[in-house]
Amino acid sequence: MSEVYAARRARLRERCQAGGSASALITRPANVRYLAGPAPLGTVLLLGRQEDVLVCSGPPGERPTPAGRPDESLRRHTLSGPGGDPAVAAAGLAEAQGADSLALEEHHLTVARHRAVRSVAPRLRLADLGGAVEQLRVVKDEEEISCLRIAAEIADQALGELLESILVGRTERHLALELERRLVDHGADGPAFPTSVATGPNAGRRGHRPTDRRVEEGDFLSVCLGAAYRGYRCEIGRTFVIGTAPADWQIELYDLVFAAQRAGRESLAPGAAYRDVDRAARQVMDSAGYTQGLPSLTGHGVGLEIDEDPQLGPAAMGKLDACVPVTVEPGVHLPGRGGVRIDDTLVVRPEADGGPELLTITTKELLAL
Amino acid sequence: MSEVYAARRARLRERCQAGGSASALITRPANVRYLAGPAPLGTVLLLGRQEDVLVCSGPPGERPTPAGRPDESLRRHTLSGPGGDPAVAAAGLAEAQGADSLALEEHHLTVARHRAVRSVAPRLRLADLGGAVEQLRVVKDEEEISCLRIAAEIADQALGELLESILVGRTERHLALELERRLVDHGADGPAFPTSVATGPNAGRRGHRPTDRRVEEGDFLSVCLGAAYRGYRCEIGRTFVIGTAPADWQIELYDLVFAAQRAGRESLAPGAAYRDVDRAARQVMDSAGYTQGLPSLTGHGVGLEIDEDPQLGPAAMGKLDACVPVTVEPGVHLPGRGGVRIDDTLVVRPEADGGPELLTITTKELLAL
Repeated sequence: MSEVYAARRARLRERCQAGGSASALITRPANVRYLAGPAPLGTVLLLGRQEDVLVCSGPPGERPTPAGRPDESLRRHTLSGPGGDPAVAAAGLAEAQGADSLALEEHHLTVARHRAVRSVAPRLRLADLGGAVEQLRVVKDEEEISCLRIAAEIADQALGELLESILVGRTERHLALELERRLVDHGADGPAFPTSVATGPNAGRRGHRPTDRRVEEGDFLSVCLGAAYRGYRCEIGRTFVIGTAPADWQIELYDLVFAAQRAGRESLAPGAAYRDVDRAARQVMDSAGYTQGLPSLTGHGVGLEIDEDPQLGPAAMGKLDACVPVTVEPGVHLPGRGGVRIDDTLVVRPEADGGPELLTITTKELLAL
Repeated sequence: MSEVYAARRARLRERCQAGGSASALITRPANVRYLAGPAPLGTVLLLGRQEDVLVCSGPPGERPTPAGRPDESLRRHTLSGPGGDPAVAAAGLAEAQGADSLALEEHHLTVARHRAVRSVAPRLRLADLGGAVEQLRVVKDEEEISCLRIAAEIADQALGELLESILVGRTERHLALELERRLVDHGADGPAFPTSVATGPNAGRRGHRPTDRRVEEGDFLSVCLGAAYRGYRCEIGRTFVIGTAPADWQIELYDLVFAAQRAGRESLAPGAAYRDVDRAARQVMDSAGYTQGLPSLTGHGVGLEIDEDPQLGPAAMGKLDACVPVTVEPGVHLPGRGGVRIDDTLVVRPEADGGPELLTITTKELLAL
C-alpha cells in the first residue's frame, strides 16, 4: 500500500505547487487516511517541503485507532504530552523545513486552531488547500472499489438475514441493533453510519432515527444500512410491506419510487452531469404529482466517508467520471402515512464495460414480509 | 423545560454583554442543545439583540433528530433550500436585528464558515465567544443529574447482565455489541460512546477498539461503557479476571489501581483543585513504581458530551464545584501483558450532603468470571 499512498501524496503535491504552496497540512481525518493510511484519532499529515511527516497526538494507546497501519515509509512524529495540537506541531515542522507557505484545510480547521498555527509559525504564509484532497478522492482505484464491493456484500448479507426473521412486534431500535450486529458478524469494521429502521408513518424518511415503535401488520418498513470495510463505506436502502398483501396505495407509491430509482441508475455514465442524474429520477416523481416530501438529493458519492462528493442534486455542478461510486436513493414520504425509499450503491462504468456496476444486489421487488 | 433553557440563555447573555457583544451565535451541537433543547443536526442558535432564533437546516425530515423537542418558545427559522449554512443565515438575522457585534464559537466554527459569516454580515464586528457555554455546562442542575443517574443505572444493568453470561470464547466485538444492545434494552438513547471491551494483552488500554480476539482463561477483561439518556452521557469501567483464580500479578495490579481510584474518588470535594484529584490517584501508582502506561488524565467531566470540562490532569487549572459530575478512571497497562482500568462516574457533593455521589454502583471487587 505504501506506494499507493506515496502516489496520492505526489498528485496532491502537484496541485499544491500549482497553487503556489510548497507544503500542505492535512487535518481532515478521512483525508489523512487517504494519503497516509489508518492512523490514530487526531493524527495530521504534513506534506512537507523536504519530507512528509505524520504527526500523532500523544501519548499513544490512549486514542481510538482504526484497524490497519499508517504508511510505514512516512516519518512519524508523536507529541510527548497530552493536550497538544498535532496541527500546531506540524506547522512548526513545516517552518523548520524552510517552507514559506502552508496550505491548510480551512473547511475543516477551526478558527481557534488556525490562529494557534499562525502564532507558532508566524513567518509562514497560510493559504487555503480547499477541497483538493476531497477532489482526489472522487475517482476510486480498483483496490478501493473492491473494499466497497465487500462492504456491499456484507450489507446485503445482514439485510438478507433480517428478512428471514420475524419482524412484526419488534421495535425499530432492536431491528437496527440486530442489523448492526449482523454487519459485524459478517466482517464489517462496523456500521458505515447509524442504521435507520423506519416503520409505518416513519417509513421513507431519510436519516430516520430508530424509535421504540413496533412493526405492525400493513406497515411500510424501510431500512437503510451500510457496512464499513477497511474504512470504505457503502449504503443500501430497501422498503418492504408487512403482512400478506400490500394496499393499492403502497403498490402505487412503491412502483413510482422504483421507476424513479431505476431512471437514476440508468442515467449513470461517464460524462453524465450530476444534475441530470438527479433530474432523471426526480422527474419521474414530479410527473406523478409528487413534488412534496422529495429528498433534496437523489444520491451522493461514497468512499472513506458515507457522504462525499459528488452530490447528485438539482444545483450540482460537474460530470461523472468512470470509477466513481455513488448512491441512487430517491424516496417519497407522505406525512402521517409513511413512504418508500430505495437506495443502491453503484460504481460508474463506461458502456463498454457493461455500464454502472451495482454493488448492493438485494432484490428491489416489493416484498410482503 | 422552556424556562430552564431561557434561564441558561439569560446567563449566557450576561456573559456576552460583559464581553462587549450584544449577540452570540452558538454552533457547537452540545451547546445548542444545552441552550435550546434537542434540535435537528446542524441547527444553530442566535442569541439575538432583539430575540433569540433557532436556525435549522432545511429541508426538514432529512436530518437525524434526537428525541425530544427544542424550546417551543424560541422563534424557528428553517432554511428553504439544501446546502445552506444556518450559521450564515443566523449572522444575517443578527445584522438585521441591528447588532453591531456577534460573538462566535471560534473553537468550533471552521475558517471557511467564519469567512462566509463575515461576508454575509460585513458590518458586524465578529468576536470570540470562547468556551463560555462549556463553562456554563460544568455545574449541572438536579434535572441534569437525574438524567445522568438514570444513564448510570442503565449502564450498571447492562454490565451486570453481561457478567451473568458465558464469556470465554466470545470476541471483544461481540461482547461490545451485546452490551450496546442491552443499553438500548434498558432504555438508553444509545451508547454514550463506542463501547470498549479489551481482553488479555489489550486489557486496561484506554479507548481500546474491540477486536476479534476471543476471551481466554486467565485473561484480564476490561470493559468500558456508558449510556446516553435524554442526551446525558455517563461512563463506567471495570476489569475482571477470567477463570477460577487470578494470578498474583493480576491481584497486585488490581489492588493498586483500585487503591488509586479510591484515592481519586475520596479527593472529590467542592473546592478541590483538579490537579489534586489527579495527583491523589497518580501518586498511588507512582509510589508503587508504575510511572509508564499511565493515562494522561485521571478523569473528566461528563454531561451532554462524554468528555467535557473539567479535565482532571496534572496540568489542569481550576477547582471543583458542587454538582459537577466527573469520572475517576485511573488505569495501568503493561505492554504485552494487559492491565487494569477502574472507572466510575460521580457527582461532587459537599461533605454535609454525604460527599461524592457514586452514580455507577457495580461492584469494584476483583471478580473471577
